[in-house]
Amino acid sequence: MVVGLRLSQLCEVLNQRGFPARLDGDDRTVHAVNTLEDAGEGEISFLSNPKYQGALSATRACAVLVKDGAAVPPGVSAVRCADPYACVTVAIITLHGHRRHPKWGLSRQAQIDPSAKIGAHPNIAPGVTIAANAVIGDNCTIYPGCYVADSARIGNDCTLFPNVVVYDHSELGHRVTIHAGSVIGQDGLGYAPLGEKWIKIPQVGRTIIGDDVEIGANCAIDRATLGRTEVGAGTKFGNVVVVGHGTKIGPDCMFVGLVGIAGSATIGRHVTLAGQVGVAGHLTVGDGASVGAQAGISGDVEPNAKLLGSPAIPLDQAKRSMLALTKLPDWIKRVKDLERELQELREKIEHNGAARES
Amino acid sequence: MVVGLRLSQLCEVLNQRGFPARLDGDDRTVHAVNTLEDAGEGEISFLSNPKYQGALSATRACAVLVKDGAAVPPGVSAVRCADPYACVTVAIITLHGHRRHPKWGLSRQAQIDPSAKIGAHPNIAPGVTIAANAVIGDNCTIYPGCYVADSARIGNDCTLFPNVVVYDHSELGHRVTIHAGSVIGQDGLGYAPLGEKWIKIPQVGRTIIGDDVEIGANCAIDRATLGRTEVGAGTKFGNVVVVGHGTKIGPDCMFVGLVGIAGSATIGRHVTLAGQVGVAGHLTVGDGASVGAQAGISGDVEPNAKLLGSPAIPLDQAKRSMLALTKLPDWIKRVKDLERELQELREKIEHNGAARES
Amino acid sequence: MVVGLRLSQLCEVLNQRGFPARLDGDDRTVHAVNTLEDAGEGEISFLSNPKYQGALSATRACAVLVKDGAAVPPGVSAVRCADPYACVTVAIITLHGHRRHPKWGLSRQAQIDPSAKIGAHPNIAPGVTIAANAVIGDNCTIYPGCYVADSARIGNDCTLFPNVVVYDHSELGHRVTIHAGSVIGQDGLGYAPLGEKWIKIPQVGRTIIGDDVEIGANCAIDRATLGRTEVGAGTKFGNVVVVGHGTKIGPDCMFVGLVGIAGSATIGRHVTLAGQVGVAGHLTVGDGASVGAQAGISGDVEPNAKLLGSPAIPLDQAKRSMLALTKLPDWIKRVKDLERELQELREKIEHNGAARES
Repeated sequence: MVVGLRLSQLCEVLNQRGFPARLDGDDRTVHAVNTLEDAGEGEISFLSNPKYQGALSATRACAVLVKDGAAVPPGVSAVRCADPYACVTVAIITLHGHRRHPKWGLSRQAQIDPSAKIGAHPNIAPGVTIAANAVIGDNCTIYPGCYVADSARIGNDCTLFPNVVVYDHSELGHRVTIHAGSVIGQDGLGYAPLGEKWIKIPQVGRTIIGDDVEIGANCAIDRATLGRTEVGAGTKFGNVVVVGHGTKIGPDCMFVGLVGIAGSATIGRHVTLAGQVGVAGHLTVGDGASVGAQAGISGDVEPNAKLLGSPAIPLDQAKRSMLALTKLPDWIKRVKDLERELQELREKIEHNGAARES
Repeated sequence: MVVGLRLSQLCEVLNQRGFPARLDGDDRTVHAVNTLEDAGEGEISFLSNPKYQGALSATRACAVLVKDGAAVPPGVSAVRCADPYACVTVAIITLHGHRRHPKWGLSRQAQIDPSAKIGAHPNIAPGVTIAANAVIGDNCTIYPGCYVADSARIGNDCTLFPNVVVYDHSELGHRVTIHAGSVIGQDGLGYAPLGEKWIKIPQVGRTIIGDDVEIGANCAIDRATLGRTEVGAGTKFGNVVVVGHGTKIGPDCMFVGLVGIAGSATIGRHVTLAGQVGVAGHLTVGDGASVGAQAGISGDVEPNAKLLGSPAIPLDQAKRSMLALTKLPDWIKRVKDLERELQELREKIEHNGAARES
Repeated sequence: MVVGLRLSQLCEVLNQRGFPARLDGDDRTVHAVNTLEDAGEGEISFLSNPKYQGALSATRACAVLVKDGAAVPPGVSAVRCADPYACVTVAIITLHGHRRHPKWGLSRQAQIDPSAKIGAHPNIAPGVTIAANAVIGDNCTIYPGCYVADSARIGNDCTLFPNVVVYDHSELGHRVTIHAGSVIGQDGLGYAPLGEKWIKIPQVGRTIIGDDVEIGANCAIDRATLGRTEVGAGTKFGNVVVVGHGTKIGPDCMFVGLVGIAGSATIGRHVTLAGQVGVAGHLTVGDGASVGAQAGISGDVEPNAKLLGSPAIPLDQAKRSMLALTKLPDWIKRVKDLERELQELREKIEHNGAARES
């Protein structure tokens, strides 16, 4: 993080990171990145989505990251590049850096069981509980109200925001970030039916979260009944994502808010599930699949498939069906018209035939 | 709040508040409001939804708030008015009042950073954390387990129920109520793709919650990547409402449970979203729009539009399409019949033609 | 719970519990139950869902619970029974037992109001708050971060996992388990409209949870405006189930993750709602009904009905309609073809008629 940066310096940083950029306009100093709408003096903005072209004309930013040929209002310096979204990411990291956490060290007001192992450079707040035999890696930040249950293991450089709960025997890799209120490793809906009653099956499996996973607020990831629930390395969850017991999710997936996945599903690598998507249990979603908002996956999905709808079908087909559905009442009227017309024609022919025979 | 109230006094209160009411029956004393089903001696109930007419006949309430012409069982006093639902609201406020919170003052067992500013008459529980440079207004009640992060600002007369988390730099107006477990200002899904990897974009924007907002339990409202996520004054959320980064919601909206709104959406004033509605990102929903349960908004919505369905279409059209859909297999059979009949007719004509020619 | 068990002993246990079983193979000692995929030496697994037949061939388990006629790989002992899923439940309970909680006794670092009543053998952690006049039964385990508000009542043998919040006057029966982050008894969306403003109605009703209920993580169950919200005995919720104010749910129901039920609904006994199902307010769902994932219940439901779709319709009809929907564009083409063909036929007849008349 730096306090201010000349645009020429920003271009250098971008070039070094592999994003060729050049300055078109005055070499101003910028100290923050902001939206086109909110930016003011000394701030740089960007245009990536052409939908916001109008906001560019009205911006009070002193500089903007834009594509090579883009028009820029007079008096605004342009940093021209091929991928403004990637470049603004670099600009934000350079000018703002990542969140700086409070410094608690190892608070005496944290409840840490003597049998727990705490790594080097802990940053563990008052009001945290670390239970028996838990293992916390190096450089972990754990905010107030978090509970790490017995025999849970957390890797190095992890961050648990306030009120995160990690159940017993769960395991988090390195550089895992979990936002406030999320719960890892609670019991799933594991019951054996006995008449109308539900007999609880002890949930003796675990939850394993891979390296570099980031999980939004108020998510809930079941432990497995037996074996493991898994979230692969590099996967990112939005808020309130719910994962059932025994489900295995591959690396580098992106699940948006309110996604629900039932138990014992297998999700491949780099799968994208948009908001409120549901996935039924005991099925397989192939690598690279991409599923539109509110879709319901009820069968196996091929790698790289693009799906939409509930039940989900291929995207193009779903769009055609949804469009057709909106016009369905009209088509029903046309079928009724056809029936009537066919009847009229039949009567006419019979009449003609009768006339000819008479 | 009063301990008991004669029905004639209740009528006076209602008249004063602008809801003309008159007593029809004995002038009894009532000490509580209850449902028709649960009410007992000394309790008043109401009938607003005609669906519950049967419960009125069986009620043991000694009085009921009803419309002018409504029949009331013998022995039950009627308070007659134009709007029983508004009047029962006044009766509940008068007889029961609003929730009274425990009195903690400024607990010594709260963790309050020396740089935080706490307003007059604090009611801050043990187990609360207020981080550096946070500002808390006057008369705020903050329950155990809440975390107010650094540089967050909370207005006057706010209530945070247990385990609410307010991330750094978030801002709440006056008279804001947030129910247990909700999270304000966590990072959204802000990543730049690099091959199959997701590079985190520091989320340096904020979340701004307007005056008189009430938020249900276990909601999650992202901070903006840049700029602001906003919830307008007077807006009310049910439980587990999820709002994406940079979305701006107008005043006096009502969002029911499990609503999910993606990032960078703009929602107007007094918009109603029923349960489990989803709204895609980067679109605009006009003032006064009303969207039915489970609908999926995938495009801009006109002011005052009434929508339903996924994707959402105008309500009337959606109802017709949904009805048509349930009968679709019948219509497909009728199309098959038509094809067969047309073929028979065609053969008959060709036969006739052949017969004539022979 | 036992440390190890010979397969012949397991058969005895199963026979005693009413699940006849017999050993086919070596009488080995097993010390744990695991999945076919994850099991190793000294572990027993099971095959219930024929989908996992392949995993059986590859398992390293030394024994498996299987149906009578099932083929088992060489060297693996078979415990043969009629219902492997029920039997594995017995095996897990016998070999693993249920979760053992940390032992806190009645922690001095819990905040317990002097007016609260705590039953025998409390297990109440540091960081728990029990407010005025709350009543906690015997043998309750309450994890850190839980808040039990004033005048709430909790029965015997209950478990509240970390950060559970029970609002004032809520009532839990005996043997209730609530997973981390769930909230019981918060205010629902109770407002009277006044122009575009929402006037808060004090929510003076309660929430009543029956005996033997288990509730997943991050759920939210509203209190009633007046009267009671109820969850019947033996009912089980997955994660993030949301229940509106005044809704009454019968015994022995099973609601999967992300289910949302609006206010004042009445749900019968032994109702199954799959993931992301929504139920509108003020309606009745009959005993034994079963509703498929993502369905939307918008009207009363008959007992034992099986429904699917949004809006939900009978399962068979919904499946036919959904299948038909995917083929709708084809059917529209066929209707267009019919229109064209009918027109051609009409022209031909007219031509013939004209020809004959000429």
